[in-house]
Amino acid sequence: MTQSAQHVHEHLYGKDKEVLLKRMRRIEGQARGIQKMIEEDRYCPEIIQQLTAMVRAGKEVSLLLLQDHIEGCVTDEIKHNHGGKMIPELIGVVRRTMRT
Amino acid sequence: MTQSAQHVHEHLYGKDKEVLLKRMRRIEGQARGIQKMIEEDRYCPEIIQQLTAMVRAGKEVSLLLLQDHIEGCVTDEIKHNHGGKMIPELIGVVRRTMRT
Amino acid sequence: MTQSAQHVHEHLYGKDKEVLLKRMRRIEGQARGIQKMIEEDRYCPEIIQQLTAMVRAGKEVSLLLLQDHIEGCVTDEIKHNHGGKMIPELIGVVRRTMRT
Amino acid sequence: MTQSAQHVHEHLYGKDKEVLLKRMRRIEGQARGIQKMIEEDRYCPEIIQQLTAMVRAGKEVSLLLLQDHIEGCVTDEIKHNHGGKMIPELIGVVRRTMRT
Repeated sequence: MTQSAQHVHEHLYGKDKEVLLKRMRRIEGQARGIQKMIEEDRYCPEIIQQLTAMVRAGKEVSLLLLQDHIEGCVTDEIKHNHGGKMIPELIGVVRRTMRT
Repeated sequence: MTQSAQHVHEHLYGKDKEVLLKRMRRIEGQARGIQKMIEEDRYCPEIIQQLTAMVRAGKEVSLLLLQDHIEGCVTDEIKHNHGGKMIPELIGVVRRTMRT
Repeated sequence: MTQSAQHVHEHLYGKDKEVLLKRMRRIEGQARGIQKMIEEDRYCPEIIQQLTAMVRAGKEVSLLLLQDHIEGCVTDEIKHNHGGKMIPELIGVVRRTMRT
Repeated sequence: MTQSAQHVHEHLYGKDKEVLLKRMRRIEGQARGIQKMIEEDRYCPEIIQQLTAMVRAGKEVSLLLLQDHIEGCVTDEIKHNHGGKMIPELIGVVRRTMRT
């Protein structure tokens, strides 16, 4: 059933859900901190350094989600349906993530 | 004088200040939107797509700041002091941003 | 058997082998062309443009190999052994490639 | 005079010319080594690791050229002509290099 499959998938990054949310809240805080730096006319290289840290944190969240996705949905799909459309989709995700 | 120099520098990205703040507020909103997606157990590749958009937006802000920095501080410093430490600093910023 | 498994893996990017070799020969040619430009004291931005093209071509080869790796070894391993060490290894590869 | 200006520019990365050529020869060697790995059906992640090293080396050459360009041509132009078209050109180069 699609429904039960979805139910399973829903929980596949469940183990990392709190970690993911915590990291995203920190990124939100970084975005606010950078606004404050701009408002205070801080030196460009210092602001860029904070942006770099924020961007890196965002990429780390992508990587964690990607890992959960491969260990969860992709592994599941390969076991039951030889991967199907999920492999080209995964390649697309990896490609875009790497190019970011 | 350091003070007047600083006064000048303060306004060097002033022309882009509103643009920069607007973009950072949008990034803050994207970070909140991604939290909501995680809370709703959305499909990983969809969340990764939003993260990719957020990361790209962050890099664009870095590039705009870098442009303002080169047109402002770096050009100024080269005119008055042969660039001094500002050129290695700029290369360092480009290097770190490239590797993000 | 490890031997037969290896035999299978040997051929997993076989379908792209000629494409991969052709692209790498072109990259080798680009590297030689850039040497010539340096020897001829060509304008820096022109040389950087050629380097950028070479770097991009190198990343595309990485992506093609990564695709073959996922479609081949990783899919195989998931089918027979739940992915094992291959998933963290894959994440490591994506992470390092993303940061290049 | 354009000619004398060009003469000056010709020598602006002269100090790094041997370093640049040596690095590009090494990159050419890496490109050949990777071809050999593909011919020998080596394991994808190992080949990707070598590609990553090659790409990184290419980016380092870009950064060195960029530094020479800023210290040379750009500094020169700013001192004599307030930067002119060289600043937007530099921004373009930095932008493309960062996005590679």
